[in-house]
Amino acid sequence: MSKVSSERAPHVPVSASDRTWSSAGRAAIVCIGDELNRGEVVDRNAAWLGEQLSDLGYQVMWRFGVNDIESDMIEALRRACSCASVVLVSGGLGPTSDDLTVDVAAGLIGSSAVVDQAHEDRLRARFAERKRDVPALALRQVRVPAGATVLANPVGLAPGFAIHHEDCELFFMPGVPAELKAIFATAIAPRLRQRLPAAYSQQKTTLRVFGLTEGQTDQKLRDLLPELVAAGRDGLAPTRTTLHYRLAFPEILVTLVTTGDTTDAQTHHMGLLRKVRDRLGDAAYGELADELPLVIGRALRQAGAKLATAESCTGGLLGALITGVAGCSDYYQGGVISYANEAKVQQLGVREETLLQHGAVSRECVEEMARGARERFNTTYGVAISGVAGPGGGTPEKPVGTVHIAVCGPMGIEARAIYWPGDREDIRRLSAITALHLLLRAIRATDPSKKTEAL
Amino acid sequence: MSKVSSERAPHVPVSASDRTWSSAGRAAIVCIGDELNRGEVVDRNAAWLGEQLSDLGYQVMWRFGVNDIESDMIEALRRACSCASVVLVSGGLGPTSDDLTVDVAAGLIGSSAVVDQAHEDRLRARFAERKRDVPALALRQVRVPAGATVLANPVGLAPGFAIHHEDCELFFMPGVPAELKAIFATAIAPRLRQRLPAAYSQQKTTLRVFGLTEGQTDQKLRDLLPELVAAGRDGLAPTRTTLHYRLAFPEILVTLVTTGDTTDAQTHHMGLLRKVRDRLGDAAYGELADELPLVIGRALRQAGAKLATAESCTGGLLGALITGVAGCSDYYQGGVISYANEAKVQQLGVREETLLQHGAVSRECVEEMARGARERFNTTYGVAISGVAGPGGGTPEKPVGTVHIAVCGPMGIEARAIYWPGDREDIRRLSAITALHLLLRAIRATDPSKKTEAL
Repeated sequence: MSKVSSERAPHVPVSASDRTWSSAGRAAIVCIGDELNRGEVVDRNAAWLGEQLSDLGYQVMWRFGVNDIESDMIEALRRACSCASVVLVSGGLGPTSDDLTVDVAAGLIGSSAVVDQAHEDRLRARFAERKRDVPALALRQVRVPAGATVLANPVGLAPGFAIHHEDCELFFMPGVPAELKAIFATAIAPRLRQRLPAAYSQQKTTLRVFGLTEGQTDQKLRDLLPELVAAGRDGLAPTRTTLHYRLAFPEILVTLVTTGDTTDAQTHHMGLLRKVRDRLGDAAYGELADELPLVIGRALRQAGAKLATAESCTGGLLGALITGVAGCSDYYQGGVISYANEAKVQQLGVREETLLQHGAVSRECVEEMARGARERFNTTYGVAISGVAGPGGGTPEKPVGTVHIAVCGPMGIEARAIYWPGDREDIRRLSAITALHLLLRAIRATDPSKKTEAL
Repeated sequence: MSKVSSERAPHVPVSASDRTWSSAGRAAIVCIGDELNRGEVVDRNAAWLGEQLSDLGYQVMWRFGVNDIESDMIEALRRACSCASVVLVSGGLGPTSDDLTVDVAAGLIGSSAVVDQAHEDRLRARFAERKRDVPALALRQVRVPAGATVLANPVGLAPGFAIHHEDCELFFMPGVPAELKAIFATAIAPRLRQRLPAAYSQQKTTLRVFGLTEGQTDQKLRDLLPELVAAGRDGLAPTRTTLHYRLAFPEILVTLVTTGDTTDAQTHHMGLLRKVRDRLGDAAYGELADELPLVIGRALRQAGAKLATAESCTGGLLGALITGVAGCSDYYQGGVISYANEAKVQQLGVREETLLQHGAVSRECVEEMARGARERFNTTYGVAISGVAGPGGGTPEKPVGTVHIAVCGPMGIEARAIYWPGDREDIRRLSAITALHLLLRAIRATDPSKKTEAL
């Protein structure tokens, strides 16, 4: 990996097409709450909304974060309206006295806060179910500005709502992520789709790449740059694609975004995507949604194969990744966390002389761990990890970051030694992910028909 | 837990003292980068900087997020200066053509970009070490505005810098988190400390609470509200404390922030903190830095005790949490991920008739799993988890979210059945955390002298 570029901005645009959207596609995000500005809560809502807006073809021009202070909230909404035609607002819709968003929004359109009957009924029913009285304060959260369009909250108690102000449409959602997402998906996304010109479209695909450095990826894709802009059909505006990659170590995410007339954009996008995949080959193991444990699960299920794990330094992280996938009991039998050497010997059958001669962090040890897991759990594949995660425990021969990984299965046994940079958490995470990649290669190598399954 | 409040804003201020800081303490954060606005990268830099500023006694008034567009960047810096006296800027200092921050900052003070000799020398040395030529583009990242104060980058290649504009001090850092943090800690925090009045001080303590609902916590602390403001010594301004709690399910974080003259603030803060701890009792199991696996580790090490785990639905998550702590080999032997029923029988000695009669998700099964782990790994304590993490696998008797946890040790065996809300990931995370809490109680119950160890 090219050190200079990896040390720098995580997002490297290979080529940017023109950066100015039509004014109808310009959006802004306002997130309200002291706890966000104080940094006690990371503003994931802004990121989630930004992603949704981008996927819909909008460009997020500004993000604003303000405290629960009325004058600042008013100013943020005004500023957002001045730079965008769509404004998404998160937070400040709760029942407590510092939840001021309804009143601020009402003020903006010269209206006042009123209770929404449907949400009040729902709130009263919920309290009645639990045989509890409704506290006076609770009713604050079912208010909306008079004249606003109410956006039903399918999850929680507080309604979202939409208002118009100066050629701008503002959508308000509670800051609780599950409620924000539900209201956005059911009530806001459909409206946003309608707002854009019918023929206009954005296509976006992200490929997950493993086993190439950023420099190598760049090298393979560089000759596609002249093809990123294509002339439009029948006098239509040209179709433009941006191609950028982002390091999500140890993977690289390669993203293509194509905008233009719908038919043109689809054709152009699919054509470029095919070329990008050709050039990257097996290294592009899936699309963004194809998270590695999912791809592994599909490959194992398709092969009718079973898996067991043996972990030392990762201490269960590998198992936790594999079992994050619903339905993994179809192929995952279980594993041993053999943190102590005694556990390696007793639970996995690692030989004491192996530990004495080569140590627990060695090719010999992980091979015996992988074999032990495969035999004891009676599976097709066994995967083992042993390493020095640090910060202590390093030696001149085996410094912190030294990790051995082995995969055994029908193809025999394969082992790999890796030296990771980073802290304990990094080293453990990278080890677990790399073990999964080695496993995926072993499965695909065993049955060549699975090679392109994820694509 | 009070459903209404838990569904709402995660941050509930019990009482806010006055919310307007002196103008010297007002700060703003500007984060630059398309990838942030598109939501491809979550803006953790803003949260981290917000936390640092709060801890130093500053109030973050606004957060701005803009794309790599020159006119927007200029406008964001101007707006930030108009609402704050300290502005922290992240991003856009890299070597590529869309890194525009140096030029924008230079424009703001009517200056131009120049190469910083010290950082250029360092860059050339780095390339020479690797026997690589310096590409012309790489030199872009060692530029600063002429007249700016250079802030050395101890980690990466691009220097940070500080400039003055309209009574406002602006600090610029690269967006790469490790570099931003290093520059902030070494070069910016010391300057920010100096800017505040010498006698002024802020004390902040956060307690971790487990086993009380939000309502119960509120009830126990409500009578302290009149004590939050205390008169100042010798005509000094009064000392003010804010007390707020935030749900980090299944825990509650209770935070006290006291501001005022240094001596007064310390006395007031410590006095209130003592009272808060008295009222919360054992439920307040540690401070913010006392993450649960650390507290468990200290307790086990102090008791000279060893631990083994047996996991079904969590699939290694419990082990991964425990082994996230450096030096855990002092007390953690290992565990079995017994995902399949065969693994429960063969690797942990769960009886087949237990599985037949009660099923894998039952008190009887987790008790046998915990005993099996304790015996096979020859440890003081064994902890086991088995549950229905979903989305499939639920039945009317054992719906998704049903989880059994058992701890066995010198005190005998204790089991608990819990019904979690949420998705697969939530259910698994909550189960692992709760298992650790039950373990901590067992350790403290076994040796009463450890009871207040974490406090």
